[in-house]
Amino acid sequence: MTQHNHQSAPTQFVETNGIRFAYRRFGKTGGVPLVFNQHFRGTMDHWDPAVIDGLARNREVILFNNAGISSSSGRVPTSFREMGANAIAFIRALELAKVDVLGFSIGGMVAQEIAVQAPDLVRRLILVGTGPRGADMTTSKSAEIFAATYDSPEHLWLAVHFSPSPSSQAAGLAFLERKLSRNDRDPDVSEEAAAAQREAIGKYIAPAENIFDYLKNIRQPTLIVQGSNDVVVPTVNSYILQQNLPNAQLIIYPDSAHGSLFQYPKQFVQHVSLFLSEDEAR
Amino acid sequence: MTQHNHQSAPTQFVETNGIRFAYRRFGKTGGVPLVFNQHFRGTMDHWDPAVIDGLARNREVILFNNAGISSSSGRVPTSFREMGANAIAFIRALELAKVDVLGFSIGGMVAQEIAVQAPDLVRRLILVGTGPRGADMTTSKSAEIFAATYDSPEHLWLAVHFSPSPSSQAAGLAFLERKLSRNDRDPDVSEEAAAAQREAIGKYIAPAENIFDYLKNIRQPTLIVQGSNDVVVPTVNSYILQQNLPNAQLIIYPDSAHGSLFQYPKQFVQHVSLFLSEDEAR
Repeated sequence: MTQHNHQSAPTQFVETNGIRFAYRRFGKTGGVPLVFNQHFRGTMDHWDPAVIDGLARNREVILFNNAGISSSSGRVPTSFREMGANAIAFIRALELAKVDVLGFSIGGMVAQEIAVQAPDLVRRLILVGTGPRGADMTTSKSAEIFAATYDSPEHLWLAVHFSPSPSSQAAGLAFLERKLSRNDRDPDVSEEAAAAQREAIGKYIAPAENIFDYLKNIRQPTLIVQGSNDVVVPTVNSYILQQNLPNAQLIIYPDSAHGSLFQYPKQFVQHVSLFLSEDEAR
Repeated sequence: MTQHNHQSAPTQFVETNGIRFAYRRFGKTGGVPLVFNQHFRGTMDHWDPAVIDGLARNREVILFNNAGISSSSGRVPTSFREMGANAIAFIRALELAKVDVLGFSIGGMVAQEIAVQAPDLVRRLILVGTGPRGADMTTSKSAEIFAATYDSPEHLWLAVHFSPSPSSQAAGLAFLERKLSRNDRDPDVSEEAAAAQREAIGKYIAPAENIFDYLKNIRQPTLIVQGSNDVVVPTVNSYILQQNLPNAQLIIYPDSAHGSLFQYPKQFVQHVSLFLSEDEAR
Protein backbone atom coordinates (compact mmCIF):
# COMPACT_ATOMS: atom_id res chain seq x y z
CA MET A 1 0.00 0.00 0.00
CA THR A 2 0.99 3.64 -0.40
CA GLN A 3 3.00 4.99 2.51
CA HIS A 4 1.27 8.25 3.28
CA ASN A 5 2.41 10.75 5.88
CA HIS A 6 1.09 13.93 7.50
CA GLN A 7 1.84 15.96 4.38
CA SER A 8 0.59 13.57 1.74
CA ALA A 9 -2.37 11.78 3.34
CA PRO A 10 -5.51 12.67 1.36
CA THR A 11 -8.55 14.07 3.15
CA GLN A 12 -11.30 11.46 3.08
CA PHE A 13 -14.93 11.71 4.13
CA VAL A 14 -17.40 9.49 5.96
CA GLU A 15 -21.05 10.33 6.58
CA THR A 16 -23.10 9.41 9.65
CA ASN A 17 -25.96 11.03 11.61
CA GLY A 18 -26.25 13.56 8.80
CA ILE A 19 -22.67 14.80 9.34
CA ARG A 20 -19.96 14.45 6.71
CA PHE A 21 -16.72 14.04 8.69
CA ALA A 22 -13.40 14.95 7.08
CA TYR A 23 -10.50 12.73 8.14
CA ARG A 24 -7.03 11.52 7.22
CA ARG A 25 -5.89 8.01 8.05
CA PHE A 26 -2.41 6.57 7.57
CA GLY A 27 0.48 4.80 9.31
CA LYS A 28 1.25 1.18 10.14
CA THR A 29 -1.91 -0.92 10.02
CA GLY A 30 -2.70 -4.06 12.05
CA GLY A 31 -2.95 -2.66 15.60
CA VAL A 32 -5.30 -0.39 17.48
CA PRO A 33 -5.58 2.97 15.66
CA LEU A 34 -4.94 6.24 17.51
CA VAL A 35 -7.64 8.93 17.04
CA PHE A 36 -6.60 12.58 17.55
CA ASN A 37 -8.94 15.24 19.02
CA GLN A 38 -7.85 18.79 18.27
CA HIS A 39 -7.60 22.02 20.30
CA PHE A 40 -9.68 25.24 20.23
CA ARG A 41 -9.88 26.67 16.67
CA GLY A 42 -7.71 23.83 15.40
CA THR A 43 -8.10 21.71 12.26
CA MET A 44 -6.28 18.59 11.04
CA ASP A 45 -3.52 20.96 9.91
CA HIS A 46 -2.82 22.16 13.45
CA TRP A 47 -1.06 18.96 14.49
CA ASP A 48 2.73 18.67 14.38
CA PRO A 49 3.93 16.48 11.49
CA ALA A 50 6.88 15.39 13.69
CA VAL A 51 4.44 14.05 16.30
CA ILE A 52 1.95 12.47 13.89
CA ASP A 53 4.53 10.89 11.59
CA GLY A 54 6.58 9.76 14.59
CA LEU A 55 3.59 7.91 16.01
CA ALA A 56 2.43 6.67 12.57
CA ARG A 57 5.68 4.72 12.25
CA ASN A 58 4.31 2.06 14.62
CA ARG A 59 0.53 2.49 14.50
CA GLU A 60 -2.35 3.73 12.42
CA VAL A 61 -3.23 7.38 13.10
CA ILE A 62 -6.58 9.03 12.40
CA LEU A 63 -6.93 12.82 12.28
CA PHE A 64 -10.40 14.29 11.84
CA ASN A 65 -12.41 17.47 12.08
CA ASN A 66 -15.28 17.07 14.47
CA ALA A 67 -18.78 18.23 13.42
CA GLY A 68 -18.90 21.86 12.28
CA ILE A 69 -15.12 22.25 12.17
CA SER A 70 -13.38 23.27 8.93
CA SER A 71 -13.99 20.73 6.14
CA SER A 72 -16.51 18.68 8.17
CA SER A 73 -20.19 19.53 7.80
CA GLY A 74 -22.68 20.05 10.62
CA ARG A 75 -22.60 22.47 13.54
CA VAL A 76 -20.29 22.66 16.54
CA PRO A 77 -22.38 21.75 19.60
CA THR A 78 -22.12 23.89 22.71
CA SER A 79 -21.06 21.07 25.03
CA PHE A 80 -18.20 18.58 25.14
CA ARG A 81 -20.73 15.86 25.88
CA GLU A 82 -22.27 16.41 22.43
CA MET A 83 -18.84 16.78 20.77
CA GLY A 84 -17.91 13.45 22.40
CA ALA A 85 -21.07 11.85 20.98
CA ASN A 86 -20.18 13.17 17.52
CA ALA A 87 -16.64 11.80 17.82
CA ILE A 88 -18.03 8.39 18.82
CA ALA A 89 -20.35 8.45 15.80
CA PHE A 90 -17.37 9.24 13.57
CA ILE A 91 -15.27 6.39 15.01
CA ARG A 92 -18.15 3.93 14.65
CA ALA A 93 -18.76 5.10 11.08
CA LEU A 94 -15.25 3.88 10.31
CA GLU A 95 -16.37 0.49 11.69
CA LEU A 96 -13.73 0.53 14.41
CA ALA A 97 -14.51 -1.51 17.54
CA LYS A 98 -11.51 -0.38 19.63
CA VAL A 99 -9.32 2.69 19.41
CA ASP A 100 -6.76 4.60 21.43
CA VAL A 101 -7.86 8.21 21.90
CA LEU A 102 -5.61 11.26 22.18
CA GLY A 103 -7.06 14.66 23.03
CA PHE A 104 -5.21 17.96 23.23
CA SER A 105 -6.65 20.97 25.12
CA ILE A 106 -10.43 21.03 24.49
CA GLY A 107 -9.78 17.85 22.48
CA GLY A 108 -8.81 16.29 25.82
CA MET A 109 -12.19 17.30 27.21
CA VAL A 110 -13.84 15.61 24.21
CA ALA A 111 -11.60 12.55 24.71
CA GLN A 112 -12.77 12.20 28.33
CA GLU A 113 -16.39 12.36 27.15
CA ILE A 114 -15.68 9.63 24.58
CA ALA A 115 -14.32 7.40 27.36
CA VAL A 116 -17.29 8.17 29.63
CA GLN A 117 -19.93 7.54 26.95
CA ALA A 118 -18.33 4.60 25.13
CA PRO A 119 -15.95 2.88 27.56
CA ASP A 120 -15.78 -0.29 25.45
CA LEU A 121 -14.61 1.65 22.43
CA VAL A 122 -11.51 3.05 24.13
CA ARG A 123 -8.42 0.96 24.90
CA ARG A 124 -6.12 3.75 26.19
CA LEU A 125 -6.43 7.47 26.64
CA ILE A 126 -3.87 10.27 26.19
CA LEU A 127 -4.76 13.70 27.59
CA VAL A 128 -2.47 16.59 26.69
CA GLY A 129 -2.70 20.16 28.01
CA THR A 130 -6.19 19.66 29.34
CA GLY A 131 -8.25 19.52 32.50
CA PRO A 132 -11.22 17.88 34.17
CA ARG A 133 -14.79 19.18 34.33
CA GLY A 134 -14.66 22.10 36.72
CA ALA A 135 -11.05 22.80 35.71
CA ASP A 136 -9.32 25.54 37.70
CA MET A 137 -8.84 28.31 35.12
CA THR A 138 -8.12 31.15 37.58
CA THR A 139 -4.56 31.62 36.30
CA SER A 140 -5.38 31.03 32.62
CA LYS A 141 -4.27 33.80 30.25
CA SER A 142 -6.29 32.36 27.41
CA ALA A 143 -8.61 35.35 26.92
CA GLU A 144 -5.74 37.88 26.64
CA ILE A 145 -3.63 35.63 24.43
CA PHE A 146 -6.38 34.93 21.90
CA ALA A 147 -7.53 38.61 21.89
CA ALA A 148 -4.06 40.08 21.29
CA THR A 149 -2.62 40.91 17.86
CA TYR A 150 0.69 39.51 16.60
CA ASP A 151 3.36 40.53 14.05
CA SER A 152 2.27 37.56 12.03
CA PRO A 153 -1.15 35.97 12.80
CA GLU A 154 0.59 32.59 13.11
CA HIS A 155 2.63 33.93 16.04
CA LEU A 156 -0.51 33.65 18.15
CA TRP A 157 0.53 30.00 18.46
CA LEU A 158 3.95 30.93 19.83
CA ALA A 159 2.16 32.68 22.71
CA VAL A 160 -0.30 29.82 23.22
CA HIS A 161 1.95 26.81 22.88
CA PHE A 162 5.45 27.93 23.94
CA SER A 163 7.11 29.52 26.95
CA PRO A 164 8.83 32.94 26.67
CA SER A 165 12.33 31.41 26.94
CA PRO A 166 14.57 31.71 23.85
CA SER A 167 14.85 27.91 23.49
CA SER A 168 11.09 27.42 23.71
CA GLN A 169 10.42 30.22 21.21
CA ALA A 170 13.01 28.71 18.85
CA ALA A 171 11.24 25.36 19.17
CA GLY A 172 8.01 27.22 18.41
CA LEU A 173 9.33 28.69 15.16
CA ALA A 174 10.55 25.22 14.11
CA PHE A 175 7.08 23.83 14.90
CA LEU A 176 5.33 26.51 12.82
CA GLU A 177 7.58 25.69 9.89
CA ARG A 178 6.75 21.98 10.15
CA LYS A 179 3.06 22.72 10.60
CA LEU A 180 2.83 25.02 7.58
CA SER A 181 4.65 22.67 5.21
CA ARG A 182 1.48 20.91 3.99
CA ASN A 183 0.09 22.49 0.79
CA ASP A 184 -3.42 21.05 0.59
CA ARG A 185 -4.74 22.75 3.74
CA ASP A 186 -8.01 22.63 5.65
CA PRO A 187 -10.15 25.80 5.74
CA ASP A 188 -9.89 27.89 8.93
CA VAL A 189 -12.40 27.37 11.73
CA SER A 190 -15.34 29.82 11.45
CA GLU A 191 -16.11 32.44 14.08
CA GLU A 192 -19.44 30.72 14.70
CA ALA A 193 -17.67 27.42 15.43
CA ALA A 194 -15.17 29.11 17.76
CA ALA A 195 -18.05 30.80 19.63
CA ALA A 196 -19.72 27.41 20.19
CA GLN A 197 -16.42 25.98 21.47
CA ARG A 198 -16.12 28.94 23.85
CA GLU A 199 -19.63 28.34 25.15
CA ALA A 200 -18.79 24.66 25.75
CA ILE A 201 -15.69 25.67 27.73
CA GLY A 202 -17.76 28.02 29.90
CA LYS A 203 -20.20 25.25 30.82
CA TYR A 204 -17.45 22.68 31.35
CA ILE A 205 -15.44 24.70 33.86
CA ALA A 206 -18.43 25.74 35.98
CA PRO A 207 -17.78 24.45 39.51
CA ALA A 208 -20.13 21.87 41.04
CA GLU A 209 -20.09 19.54 44.02
CA ASN A 210 -18.18 16.25 43.58
CA ILE A 211 -17.41 17.36 40.06
CA PHE A 212 -14.37 15.04 39.75
CA ASP A 213 -16.38 11.90 40.61
CA TYR A 214 -16.89 11.00 36.93
CA LEU A 215 -13.12 10.47 36.62
CA LYS A 216 -13.36 7.32 38.78
CA ASN A 217 -15.34 5.73 35.93
CA ILE A 218 -12.59 6.26 33.37
CA ARG A 219 -10.72 3.05 34.03
CA GLN A 220 -8.58 2.95 30.90
CA PRO A 221 -4.84 3.31 31.36
CA THR A 222 -4.36 7.03 30.78
CA LEU A 223 -1.28 9.09 29.96
CA ILE A 224 -1.49 12.77 30.92
CA VAL A 225 1.05 15.13 29.35
CA GLN A 226 1.52 18.77 30.21
CA GLY A 227 3.87 21.73 30.03
CA SER A 228 5.41 23.13 33.21
CA ASN A 229 3.50 26.41 32.91
CA ASP A 230 0.47 26.03 30.68
CA VAL A 231 -0.92 29.55 30.22
CA VAL A 232 -4.16 28.29 28.64
CA VAL A 233 -5.22 25.30 30.79
CA PRO A 234 -3.18 25.78 33.97
CA THR A 235 -0.75 22.95 34.71
CA VAL A 236 -2.30 22.09 38.07
CA ASN A 237 -5.30 20.66 36.22
CA SER A 238 -3.14 17.83 34.89
CA TYR A 239 -2.05 17.04 38.44
CA ILE A 240 -5.72 17.04 39.50
CA LEU A 241 -6.55 14.68 36.62
CA GLN A 242 -3.74 12.32 37.67
CA GLN A 243 -4.80 12.33 41.30
CA ASN A 244 -8.44 11.56 40.46
CA LEU A 245 -8.17 9.10 37.59
CA PRO A 246 -7.78 5.49 38.80
CA ASN A 247 -5.02 4.50 36.37
CA ALA A 248 -3.17 7.53 35.09
CA GLN A 249 0.47 8.35 34.50
CA LEU A 250 1.47 12.03 34.39
CA ILE A 251 4.41 13.53 32.50
CA ILE A 252 5.23 17.23 32.85
CA TYR A 253 7.91 18.71 30.58
CA PRO A 254 10.20 21.58 31.62
CA ASP A 255 10.08 25.20 30.42
CA SER A 256 6.92 24.74 28.37
CA ALA A 257 3.38 26.05 28.02
CA HIS A 258 0.23 24.69 26.33
CA GLY A 259 1.93 22.91 23.42
CA SER A 260 4.47 20.73 25.21
CA LEU A 261 3.89 17.97 22.64
CA PHE A 262 5.00 20.35 19.88
CA GLN A 263 8.00 21.60 21.86
CA TYR A 264 9.34 18.10 22.61
CA PRO A 265 8.03 16.06 19.68
CA LYS A 266 10.77 13.44 19.94
CA GLN A 267 10.33 12.80 23.68
CA PHE A 268 6.54 12.95 23.32
CA VAL A 269 6.58 10.30 20.60
CA GLN A 270 8.89 8.12 22.71
CA HIS A 271 6.77 8.50 25.85
CA VAL A 272 3.49 7.87 24.03
CA SER A 273 4.98 4.86 22.21
CA LEU A 274 6.16 3.37 25.51
CA PHE A 275 2.78 3.98 27.10
CA LEU A 276 0.78 2.49 24.23
CA SER A 277 3.00 -0.59 24.04
CA GLU A 278 3.11 -1.36 27.79
CA ASP A 279 1.82 -4.78 28.83
CA GLU A 280 -1.93 -4.83 29.22
CA ALA A 281 -1.66 -5.99 32.81
CA ARG A 282 -0.10 -3.75 35.44
CA MET B 1 36.27 -7.82 31.77
CA THR B 2 33.92 -9.69 34.09
CA GLN B 3 30.25 -8.92 33.57
CA HIS B 4 29.02 -8.33 37.09
CA ASN B 5 25.43 -7.63 38.06
CA HIS B 6 23.52 -6.55 41.17
CA GLN B 7 23.88 -10.02 42.73
CA SER B 8 27.50 -10.73 41.88
CA ALA B 9 29.22 -7.34 42.06
CA PRO B 10 31.79 -7.46 44.88
CA THR B 11 31.75 -4.84 47.60
CA GLN B 12 34.82 -2.61 47.20
CA PHE B 13 36.19 0.12 49.44
CA VAL B 14 37.73 3.54 48.95
CA GLU B 15 39.04 5.77 51.72
CA THR B 16 38.89 9.55 51.86
CA ASN B 17 38.49 12.20 54.61
CA GLY B 18 39.01 9.42 57.15
CA ILE B 19 35.92 7.52 55.91
CA ARG B 20 36.11 4.07 54.33
CA PHE B 21 33.24 3.99 51.82
CA ALA B 22 31.77 0.65 50.73
CA TYR B 23 30.59 0.56 47.11
CA ARG B 24 29.77 -1.67 44.17
CA ARG B 25 30.47 -0.61 40.62
CA PHE B 26 29.48 -2.47 37.46
CA GLY B 27 27.69 -2.14 34.11
CA LYS B 28 28.67 -0.85 30.70
CA THR B 29 31.73 1.38 30.94
CA GLY B 30 32.69 4.32 28.72
CA GLY B 31 29.95 6.83 29.51
CA VAL B 32 28.96 8.94 32.51
CA PRO B 33 28.41 6.68 35.55
CA LEU B 34 25.17 6.84 37.52
CA VAL B 35 25.59 7.14 41.32
CA PHE B 36 22.70 5.91 43.54
CA ASN B 37 21.76 7.57 46.88
CA GLN B 38 19.64 5.36 49.10
CA HIS B 39 16.54 5.87 51.27
CA PHE B 40 16.10 5.99 55.08
CA ARG B 41 17.59 2.89 56.76
CA GLY B 42 18.62 1.53 53.36
CA THR B 43 21.88 -0.10 52.28
CA MET B 44 23.21 -1.14 48.88
CA ASP B 45 20.98 -4.22 49.22
CA HIS B 46 17.79 -2.17 49.33
CA TRP B 47 17.84 -1.36 45.61
CA ASP B 48 15.85 -3.41 43.13
CA PRO B 49 18.06 -5.70 41.01
CA ALA B 50 15.56 -5.25 38.13
CA VAL B 51 16.16 -1.48 38.22
CA ILE B 52 19.92 -1.57 38.75
CA ASP B 53 20.65 -4.32 36.21
CA GLY B 54 18.23 -2.73 33.76
CA LEU B 55 20.14 0.54 33.92
CA ALA B 56 23.56 -1.18 34.03
CA ARG B 57 22.90 -2.61 30.57
CA ASN B 58 23.71 0.77 29.02
CA ARG B 59 25.77 2.60 31.63
CA GLU B 60 28.05 2.16 34.59
CA VAL B 61 26.19 2.10 37.92
CA ILE B 62 27.71 2.89 41.31
CA LEU B 63 25.94 1.87 44.54
CA PHE B 64 27.46 2.99 47.84
CA ASN B 65 26.79 3.32 51.53
CA ASN B 66 27.24 6.90 52.66
CA ALA B 67 29.33 7.62 55.80
CA GLY B 68 28.12 5.72 58.88
CA ILE B 69 25.75 3.46 56.91
CA SER B 70 26.16 -0.33 57.10
CA SER B 71 29.56 -1.45 55.77
CA SER B 72 30.90 2.12 55.42
CA SER B 73 32.85 3.57 58.34
CA GLY B 74 32.32 6.99 59.93
CA ARG B 75 29.21 8.54 61.42
CA VAL B 76 25.96 9.60 59.82
CA PRO B 77 25.82 13.40 60.01
CA THR B 78 22.63 15.08 61.18
CA SER B 79 22.12 17.17 58.04
CA PHE B 80 21.71 16.42 54.34
CA ARG B 81 24.22 19.17 53.62
CA GLU B 82 26.90 17.13 55.39
CA MET B 83 25.72 13.87 53.81
CA GLY B 84 25.97 15.61 50.44
CA ALA B 85 29.53 16.67 51.23
CA ASN B 86 30.39 13.07 52.15
CA ALA B 87 28.86 11.79 48.91
CA ILE B 88 30.90 14.33 46.93
CA ALA B 89 34.07 13.19 48.74
CA PHE B 90 33.25 9.59 47.83
CA ILE B 91 32.66 10.41 44.13
CA ARG B 92 35.91 12.42 43.98
CA ALA B 93 37.78 9.58 45.70
CA LEU B 94 36.83 7.43 42.69
CA GLU B 95 38.49 10.13 40.55
CA LEU B 96 35.29 10.82 38.66
CA ALA B 97 34.95 14.30 37.13
CA LYS B 98 31.31 14.00 35.98
CA VAL B 99 28.50 11.73 37.13
CA ASP B 100 24.75 11.38 36.86
CA VAL B 101 23.17 11.31 40.32
CA LEU B 102 20.03 9.41 41.34
CA GLY B 103 18.54 9.87 44.80
CA PHE B 104 15.55 8.06 46.27
CA SER B 105 13.66 9.46 49.29
CA ILE B 106 16.21 10.99 51.68
CA GLY B 107 18.76 9.98 49.02
CA GLY B 108 17.01 12.54 46.81
CA MET B 109 17.62 15.18 49.47
CA VAL B 110 21.31 14.21 49.47
CA ALA B 111 21.32 14.28 45.66
CA GLN B 112 20.02 17.87 45.64
CA GLU B 113 22.78 18.84 48.08
CA ILE B 114 25.38 17.24 45.80
CA ALA B 115 24.10 19.34 42.89
CA VAL B 116 24.07 22.51 45.02
CA GLN B 117 27.59 22.02 46.42
CA ALA B 118 29.31 20.55 43.37
CA PRO B 119 27.38 21.69 40.29
CA ASP B 120 30.27 20.87 37.94
CA LEU B 121 30.35 17.27 39.13
CA VAL B 122 26.75 16.53 38.15
CA ARG B 123 25.61 16.09 34.55
CA ARG B 124 21.98 15.05 35.23
CA LEU B 125 19.87 14.48 38.30
CA ILE B 126 17.14 11.93 39.03
CA LEU B 127 14.95 12.52 42.11
CA VAL B 128 12.59 9.71 43.13
CA GLY B 129 9.99 9.83 45.93
CA THR B 130 11.54 12.93 47.47
CA GLY B 131 10.91 16.57 48.23
CA PRO B 132 12.53 19.98 48.51
CA ARG B 133 13.85 21.66 51.65
CA GLY B 134 10.75 22.61 53.62
CA ALA B 135 8.85 19.66 52.12
CA ASP B 136 5.17 19.50 53.01
CA MET B 137 4.95 16.40 55.23
CA THR B 138 1.52 17.13 56.73
CA THR B 139 -0.06 14.04 55.13
CA SER B 140 2.96 11.75 55.59
CA LYS B 141 2.24 8.48 57.40
CA SER B 142 5.94 7.76 57.80
CA ALA B 143 5.98 7.75 61.63
CA GLU B 144 3.10 5.22 61.96
CA ILE B 145 4.40 3.00 59.17
CA PHE B 146 7.93 2.71 60.58
CA ALA B 147 6.63 2.27 64.17
CA ALA B 148 4.17 -0.54 63.31
CA THR B 149 4.94 -4.26 63.52
CA TYR B 150 4.51 -6.62 60.58
CA ASP B 151 3.93 -10.40 60.08
CA SER B 152 7.40 -10.50 58.64
CA PRO B 153 9.77 -7.58 59.33
CA GLU B 154 10.39 -7.32 55.58
CA HIS B 155 6.70 -6.49 55.06
CA LEU B 156 7.43 -3.05 56.47
CA TRP B 157 8.58 -2.30 52.93
CA LEU B 158 5.24 -3.35 51.43
CA ALA B 159 3.61 -0.63 53.57
CA VAL B 160 6.29 1.95 52.71
CA HIS B 161 6.78 1.34 49.02
CA PHE B 162 3.49 -0.05 47.67
CA SER B 163 -0.18 0.95 47.57
CA PRO B 164 -2.86 -1.18 49.28
CA SER B 165 -4.26 -2.43 45.94
CA PRO B 166 -3.86 -6.17 45.19
CA SER B 167 -1.77 -5.50 42.07
CA SER B 168 0.57 -3.14 43.90
CA GLN B 169 0.99 -5.57 46.82
CA ALA B 170 1.70 -8.39 44.36
CA ALA B 171 4.34 -6.19 42.73
CA GLY B 172 5.71 -5.60 46.25
CA LEU B 173 6.13 -9.29 46.99
CA ALA B 174 7.90 -9.77 43.65
CA PHE B 175 10.19 -6.86 44.52
CA LEU B 176 11.04 -8.34 47.96
CA GLU B 177 11.94 -11.63 46.30
CA ARG B 178 14.25 -9.88 43.82
CA LYS B 179 15.75 -7.74 46.57
CA LEU B 180 16.49 -10.68 48.90
CA SER B 181 18.10 -12.83 46.23
CA ARG B 182 21.64 -11.57 46.89
CA ASN B 183 23.54 -13.79 49.37
CA ASP B 184 26.49 -11.65 50.35
CA ARG B 185 24.47 -8.94 52.13
CA ASP B 186 25.30 -5.63 53.76
CA PRO B 187 24.81 -5.33 57.54
CA ASP B 188 21.60 -3.57 58.65
CA VAL B 189 21.68 0.16 59.41
CA SER B 190 22.27 0.83 63.12
CA GLU B 191 19.72 2.55 65.35
CA GLU B 192 22.23 5.34 65.92
CA ALA B 193 22.53 5.91 62.18
CA ALA B 194 18.74 5.90 61.73
CA ALA B 195 18.40 8.44 64.56
CA ALA B 196 20.85 10.78 62.81
CA GLN B 197 18.90 10.42 59.56
CA ARG B 198 15.70 11.27 61.44
CA GLU B 199 17.31 14.38 62.91
CA ALA B 200 18.42 15.45 59.42
CA ILE B 201 14.86 15.05 58.11
CA GLY B 202 13.51 17.19 60.96
CA LYS B 203 15.89 20.04 60.13
CA TYR B 204 15.31 19.71 56.38
CA ILE B 205 11.53 20.04 56.47
CA ALA B 206 11.46 23.01 58.84
CA PRO B 207 9.66 25.83 57.02
CA ALA B 208 11.48 29.05 56.21
CA GLU B 209 10.92 32.05 54.00
CA ASN B 210 11.82 31.63 50.29
CA ILE B 211 12.89 28.11 51.10
CA PHE B 212 12.55 26.90 47.50
CA ASP B 213 14.89 29.58 46.12
CA TYR B 214 17.90 27.23 46.17
CA LEU B 215 16.18 25.10 43.51
CA LYS B 216 16.72 27.85 40.92
CA ASN B 217 20.45 27.14 41.20
CA ILE B 218 20.09 23.47 40.26
CA ARG B 219 20.31 23.94 36.52
CA GLN B 220 20.99 20.34 35.53
CA PRO B 221 18.32 18.56 33.51
CA THR B 222 16.39 16.76 36.23
CA LEU B 223 13.96 13.85 36.11
CA ILE B 224 11.52 13.65 39.03
CA VAL B 225 9.71 10.33 39.54
CA GLN B 226 6.94 9.70 42.04
CA GLY B 227 4.05 7.42 43.00
CA SER B 228 0.48 8.70 42.78
CA ASN B 229 0.02 8.54 46.56
CA ASP B 230 3.36 8.51 48.36
CA VAL B 231 2.57 7.88 52.03
CA VAL B 232 6.12 8.76 53.16
CA VAL B 233 7.05 11.89 51.19
CA PRO B 234 3.67 13.15 49.95
CA THR B 235 3.31 13.26 46.17
CA VAL B 236 2.65 16.99 46.02
CA ASN B 237 6.32 17.59 46.91
CA SER B 238 7.36 16.17 43.54
CA TYR B 239 5.00 18.62 41.84
CA ILE B 240 6.53 21.44 43.91
CA LEU B 241 10.03 20.31 42.89
CA GLN B 242 9.00 20.30 39.21
CA GLN B 243 7.44 23.75 39.43
CA ASN B 244 10.50 25.28 41.11
CA LEU B 245 13.42 23.59 39.33
CA PRO B 246 14.41 25.39 36.13
CA ASN B 247 14.76 22.27 33.96
CA ALA B 248 12.83 19.36 35.41
CA GLN B 249 10.58 16.69 33.93
CA LEU B 250 8.09 15.00 36.25
CA ILE B 251 6.68 11.48 35.89
CA ILE B 252 3.98 10.23 38.29
CA TYR B 253 2.99 6.56 38.10
CA PRO B 254 -0.54 5.30 38.87
CA ASP B 255 -1.70 3.35 41.95
CA SER B 256 1.63 3.58 43.74
CA ALA B 257 3.24 4.85 46.94
CA HIS B 258 6.85 5.61 47.95
CA GLY B 259 8.56 2.90 45.88
CA SER B 260 7.15 3.57 42.41
CA LEU B 261 10.53 2.68 40.88
CA PHE B 262 10.26 -0.81 42.43
CA GLN B 263 6.63 -1.23 41.37
CA TYR B 264 7.26 -0.34 37.72
CA PRO B 265 10.91 -1.34 37.23
CA LYS B 266 10.55 -1.85 33.48
CA GLN B 267 8.88 1.52 32.81
CA PHE B 268 11.26 3.24 35.23
CA VAL B 269 14.33 1.85 33.44
CA GLN B 270 12.85 2.91 30.09
CA HIS B 271 12.01 6.41 31.30
CA VAL B 272 15.38 6.93 32.98
CA SER B 273 17.21 5.57 29.93
CA LEU B 274 15.33 7.97 27.65
CA PHE B 275 16.04 10.88 29.98
CA LEU B 276 19.75 10.13 30.35
CA SER B 277 20.22 9.67 26.60
CA GLU B 278 18.33 12.80 25.49
CA ASP B 279 20.31 15.30 23.45
CA GLU B 280 22.29 17.68 25.61
CA ALA B 281 20.55 20.68 24.10
CA ARG B 282 16.88 21.27 24.67
